Amino acid sequence: MQLLRERILNNGKHLGRGIIKVDSFINHQLDSRLMQAIGEEFAHRFGSLQPTKILTAESSGIAPALATGIVLGIPVVFARKHQPLTMAANPYRQVAASHTHARQVELIVSPEFLGPEDRVLIIDDFLATAQTILALVKLIEQSGAALVGIGAVIEKSFEGGRAALQVLKVPVHSLAIIDGFEEDKIILR
Amino acid sequence: MQLLRERILNNGKHLGRGIIKVDSFINHQLDSRLMQAIGEEFAHRFGSLQPTKILTAESSGIAPALATGIVLGIPVVFARKHQPLTMAANPYRQVAASHTHARQVELIVSPEFLGPEDRVLIIDDFLATAQTILALVKLIEQSGAALVGIGAVIEKSFEGGRAALQVLKVPVHSLAIIDGFEEDKIILR
Repeated sequence: MQLLRERILNNGKHLGRGIIKVDSFINHQLDSRLMQAIGEEFAHRFGSLQPTKILTAESSGIAPALATGIVLGIPVVFARKHQPLTMAANPYRQVAASHTHARQVELIVSPEFLGPEDRVLIIDDFLATAQTILALVKLIEQSGAALVGIGAVIEKSFEGGRAALQVLKVPVHSLAIIDGFEEDKIILR
Repeated sequence: MQLLRERILNNGKHLGRGIIKVDSFINHQLDSRLMQAIGEEFAHRFGSLQPTKILTAESSGIAPALATGIVLGIPVVFARKHQPLTMAANPYRQVAASHTHARQVELIVSPEFLGPEDRVLIIDDFLATAQTILALVKLIEQSGAALVGIGAVIEKSFEGGRAALQVLKVPVHSLAIIDGFEEDKIILR
């Protein structure tokens, strides 16, 4: 993902304490062409696992998940943080710590859209501590669906997330890996 | 948008008091192919206005906005409901009433990503009372950008939103218009 590497190096910024600002192309403003390329790359890496559904978390996961869903031609479910009036009763619920909001968030999925017949690919914007991704994994376990793979746009290798996911024994792919920082500059693997 | 009409008639449901459930394809589970078709249709309708940026609100607006942005090749900005640690100081803020969450929400956009040089197309999932869209319009006004058009996937014609937008004197397009209900069935124009 040369395009992604360039955007991170040119437009990403380390704000301190491992928090990076990529809101000019990933999680506030979206670079549409980059998202399309990200979707093509995830589809290429995970297509052979024959996922039937993509699961992500609102809001920043929606764009890479949808871009991947369009290429694979499969539906995307985004876990909601608040239960809307329109959601079916007794949804699946899990709690995760949010890094960029410094608080706990609940992730909620309707049982209508995740069940034992599904082969689920998780797509999210970040793999850092893996708290959000592990909450999505638990939602999949609650539903009886099978997890087939995990994709993250950007991985922060120094926050332990990849090790936490190893026990799941599914392929984990990130499209760019940040190994550290030199002041506000980001060092990519 | 025959595909959209079919999904609304086959999978949409009136829950009472004008609230409709379309979470199997629009705002919890996303039909990726439908979203792609929605993006193509909005691009066809608004492309000649030469927008430079799309503005939407998290979370349900992100999918149709990104699908449109991919076809037009322009960035998408999604207004955030909570200010993340990574956002620049002194963002633009507006308050809107949320229909499906029965509470007030704040919409927040960084001045980094909206300014006087932008020609902005608003894309959202619903046009009902137009409260969310009018908050997005005010964010555009705060930034000094020009509003060029407004697109909604589904319009509820009986909640007054279209009339509230007429004063803006820009094209307003919705891809399916709900005129009313017969018990839990939806009546499309």
